Amino acid sequence: MNPLSPQLAVIRYICVMKRNELIHNIQQKKSMLCVGLDPELRLLPAHLLEADDPVFEFNKQIIDATKPYCVAYKPNLAFYEALGPNGWITFQKTVEYIGSSHFIIADAKRGDIGNTGRLYAETFFNRYHCDAVTVAPYMGEDSVAPFISEEGKWAIVLALTSNQGSSNFQKLSVETSGLTIWETVLMAVQQWGTPDQVMFVVGATHPEAFIKVRSIVPDHFLLVPGVGAQGGDLDAICRVGMNRDGGLLINASRSILYAGKNSDFAEKSAEEARRLQQQMAIYLS
Amino acid sequence: MNPLSPQLAVIRYICVMKRNELIHNIQQKKSMLCVGLDPELRLLPAHLLEADDPVFEFNKQIIDATKPYCVAYKPNLAFYEALGPNGWITFQKTVEYIGSSHFIIADAKRGDIGNTGRLYAETFFNRYHCDAVTVAPYMGEDSVAPFISEEGKWAIVLALTSNQGSSNFQKLSVETSGLTIWETVLMAVQQWGTPDQVMFVVGATHPEAFIKVRSIVPDHFLLVPGVGAQGGDLDAICRVGMNRDGGLLINASRSILYAGKNSDFAEKSAEEARRLQQQMAIYLS
Repeated sequence: MNPLSPQLAVIRYICVMKRNELIHNIQQKKSMLCVGLDPELRLLPAHLLEADDPVFEFNKQIIDATKPYCVAYKPNLAFYEALGPNGWITFQKTVEYIGSSHFIIADAKRGDIGNTGRLYAETFFNRYHCDAVTVAPYMGEDSVAPFISEEGKWAIVLALTSNQGSSNFQKLSVETSGLTIWETVLMAVQQWGTPDQVMFVVGATHPEAFIKVRSIVPDHFLLVPGVGAQGGDLDAICRVGMNRDGGLLINASRSILYAGKNSDFAEKSAEEARRLQQQMAIYLS
Repeated sequence: MNPLSPQLAVIRYICVMKRNELIHNIQQKKSMLCVGLDPELRLLPAHLLEADDPVFEFNKQIIDATKPYCVAYKPNLAFYEALGPNGWITFQKTVEYIGSSHFIIADAKRGDIGNTGRLYAETFFNRYHCDAVTVAPYMGEDSVAPFISEEGKWAIVLALTSNQGSSNFQKLSVETSGLTIWETVLMAVQQWGTPDQVMFVVGATHPEAFIKVRSIVPDHFLLVPGVGAQGGDLDAICRVGMNRDGGLLINASRSILYAGKNSDFAEKSAEEARRLQQQMAIYLS
């Protein structure tokens, strides 16, 4: 037997978060905050490095500190995969520690042909009990479909990403329609999945795009990275991106995780999370 | 400590395969065959299920049987990730078992912003010692760049994929140039990475596209999935896709892995791999 088998026998809980529950949480907490759990060993407070699993210890304290102020957590798989097979145990423990009170997004940016895509979806939804997976749309409908076939599970499809490279292909215009590629992705994918199944990634670094986004997908949730370390303007995004449900999950990772470097790091994270939440509360009142 | 730590202490070998070595192997073996290592538990021969690690046992026998006939192996990460943290140990053992004689492609279809992309590249190149990673181009240059910054390591960028969904976005025409998106990806990415750093995925299900592909990237290697179970025509692909170096890595997965279902499965795999190799040899003479 492989050394991990006893871990895999752990009893699973069923974790599904539907749209009305998410909206309820947003309204009750007056928050659209998503905390990106992207832990880098080299950035962790030194005193944690003695723990059995420093990354899990870090995540646990960040979760305890920030959970009153956020409605979602988004672990980016790159940070766990980089730790080797052990990193996947840390990821699993983190998701289980979060539990069912918060929406959990596996930021994995998957996308593969049908049978392979189905395996990815099964893994993140059924093995690791995430509510949503981020999906790259390049391979088209049969690569997105596997992520929207389970009730209460979500595909979050990349539309207009927050990075500089978003100019290379996403902003090109299509000959027949005059629409950009990212608009074309919105148009196509909203026909494949309802606002109960699909969200879209739209980076906070493009506030000018949100009016167009909302004209194409008025009801879908948007996952908005790029506030904080990447420089996106939270107020601008709330003004142009919200709908009657709130309709946004606004992600901050580094600005929250590394708000402090010492033994009071979790307290500093809570302060930053609360600051963002209170800024959002103005728009949710 | 996590239960896996002893495994992580295994001493690593350095594995780099440059272009001239790959070309040498192709010419010497008269083969451009890449075997896709996509093992599904439910499809494994029943007698293997008693092994400690059935998937590794399966891979080992497939590798032993097919290595004279192929120049590359391509494990698709979906199949390992689906097995939980243990699956990553199986993946690691598989890559180490293949060793440095064959080109190893991590079919992971990654793509994320700069710092996160760098982590993915480090993981597959330095932790798992793969030669190449498949990369989705949607997020643009800064998501591809991390995979082409190490000498002897490769990004294999999705251009025109073999699945039906390739029609949704890849085949759209861009307004200013009249080129399709997949042609635009070829044009852009070949400026980011030389034929020593970058390959492209072009599906065997689009034989008509290879003339155009070769007019844009005459010297780059192409990874060609879709022969075999997906119905691509090997002869047609060789006629229109090859360059003076061979220039193709033609992948077959299911047709080789599941050529037999009983205790002679590896023998049947070898037969199928040899059949494909001999068909390629005609074009490599």
